[in-house]
Amino acid sequence: MPDRPFATLEDFRARLSDLPQPVASAEAAARARNEVLTKPPGALGRLEELAIWYAGWRGDPEPEITAPQVLIFAGNHGVAARGVSAFPAEVTAQMVGNFQAGGAAINQLARTFGARMDVHALDLEHPTADFTAGPAMDEAAFLDALTTGWEAVDPAADLLVCGEMGIANTTSAAAIALALFGGAARDWTGRGTGVDDQGLALKARVVAEAVAANAAAVGDGLEVLRCLGGRELAAIAGAVLRARSLRIPVLLDGFIASAAVACLDAAQPGALDHVVAGHVSAEAAHARLLEKLGKAPLLSLDLRLGEGSGAALAIGILKGAVACHSGMSTFAEAGVADGE
Amino acid sequence: MPDRPFATLEDFRARLSDLPQPVASAEAAARARNEVLTKPPGALGRLEELAIWYAGWRGDPEPEITAPQVLIFAGNHGVAARGVSAFPAEVTAQMVGNFQAGGAAINQLARTFGARMDVHALDLEHPTADFTAGPAMDEAAFLDALTTGWEAVDPAADLLVCGEMGIANTTSAAAIALALFGGAARDWTGRGTGVDDQGLALKARVVAEAVAANAAAVGDGLEVLRCLGGRELAAIAGAVLRARSLRIPVLLDGFIASAAVACLDAAQPGALDHVVAGHVSAEAAHARLLEKLGKAPLLSLDLRLGEGSGAALAIGILKGAVACHSGMSTFAEAGVADGE
Repeated sequence: MPDRPFATLEDFRARLSDLPQPVASAEAAARARNEVLTKPPGALGRLEELAIWYAGWRGDPEPEITAPQVLIFAGNHGVAARGVSAFPAEVTAQMVGNFQAGGAAINQLARTFGARMDVHALDLEHPTADFTAGPAMDEAAFLDALTTGWEAVDPAADLLVCGEMGIANTTSAAAIALALFGGAARDWTGRGTGVDDQGLALKARVVAEAVAANAAAVGDGLEVLRCLGGRELAAIAGAVLRARSLRIPVLLDGFIASAAVACLDAAQPGALDHVVAGHVSAEAAHARLLEKLGKAPLLSLDLRLGEGSGAALAIGILKGAVACHSGMSTFAEAGVADGE
Repeated sequence: MPDRPFATLEDFRARLSDLPQPVASAEAAARARNEVLTKPPGALGRLEELAIWYAGWRGDPEPEITAPQVLIFAGNHGVAARGVSAFPAEVTAQMVGNFQAGGAAINQLARTFGARMDVHALDLEHPTADFTAGPAMDEAAFLDALTTGWEAVDPAADLLVCGEMGIANTTSAAAIALALFGGAARDWTGRGTGVDDQGLALKARVVAEAVAANAAAVGDGLEVLRCLGGRELAAIAGAVLRARSLRIPVLLDGFIASAAVACLDAAQPGALDHVVAGHVSAEAAHARLLEKLGKAPLLSLDLRLGEGSGAALAIGILKGAVACHSGMSTFAEAGVADGE
């Protein structure tokens, strides 16, 4: 496939080690502008740093957000056969139909915040291998999924949200977190869509088995993603790296999306500098994972749906921050005394 | 003035003791709908309760938010002469000009979230009396301000945000909180727009003096608002009561707006059932005040600007919640297995 952005995993690694940075001049100009806007210094709190961060990545000291994109990736997981989810695996495909028909939560949120939404179902009829018995994906399948994500990003987008759907994928995310950050399987295992106590105990055992069965992957972020991830998680990683290459800022969704991109950060520290955590989910391990990534969430509203829903909700916050930054008058323009 | 909604403070009290409640049938229908939407039970977290709350107040199990209104009230405070603010009193009128010209933070946020915005400057050339020497307002001035707020609400609005501007009004809010909830003046006194340590100590002394000088008001919420408030705080109280009479839900802004409506709650428990806290501000006492009101904030982003900015930002959250609730498909409609 000559038109692939990367033919091998080594090509992907090369992309990951050659990352664009924010435009320092735009960031400095935005910071200077922030100091003279008609408000007491710092009075817009986190909105101020958000706007400056966004301006730096867009290379524009007075940016606008006019073209957010929401990408939904769906995948099926062999480990679902172990009974780790409250829902049957068929629900992945059913929910893809719901996304396409416009009936899911993320459809409403994308519409509310003026975002384009694209849905990519990744080979749902072929679940990844059960990773308690070996790697979830071989290199070809992994590259396919990374490529799907890479190519799904609209180069004209000015903000990206990646969401996922995949029955059993909190198990995958927990296994990734355990492989990347250590601790006990229970620390990273939550109720997902709603397993009971017995289901939770089973899930933690499965997570521990998964990491034991893929011990060779530990220490290599991309190998962790290949062996313990799923197609939708790999696609998220591919999309987030593509966004970086295009200097498109990313709002990060919940536990699964965070586990996917944590693999990029493990492979290349700083790979997530263009990413802000949109929210912290009610899935217990998400807060811990965000701490490991050094990301403070914008929202904390007890969501645990995935689909990009928490990050999509945060589009409004970022739009508000950027609108204030670029639209407010300065003290001089408004004839307002600046308090000094 | 025969066309006044209330001719005396006793009329206003009568309004406050005769409050409409949410429409139970709409709330029940919304709760039932929430149970069958295509998501795991509870997976939208606080958005679910928000949507049900909104549906109840609007009397519509599948509501939309199409006409939010942001009201900004500005007033001047005699206590500003005591040097309790980092900004001179002239800034109140200058910022009113900035609101009218579209250059303030709240203008950008109202536009971002599709809200109508109206600005009311209340007799800026006549500051309220310095409340360290007696009541801030006589009954006529207080009734005027309540009336301005009452009449400012658009009966066609489906959501209300009230913001304020008034140099020295965190001092007023702190005095109100001390009068309503007790404790030490320092517990309720923060840096406002940014006073230094010396300014903070002075401000706490002024707050204590204010309550001592108006000791007769303690125990009566409306008297506390008249004696220790300002015109813009009274207008907020009038607007929030009018919203209640029209079953228009309210998103509450920061410390000053919260202190204003806390007087309604003190006068009539339950008066704020149609109010959700949009955010918790960085002004230290706001979190404590929201706790006293039993309100959990939607956002916590270190804002401390006032102007309704934090609550306006929360319009996006509420719009998202309601859009999910009213726009999502049910399990049956979408042909998705419901996990049981």
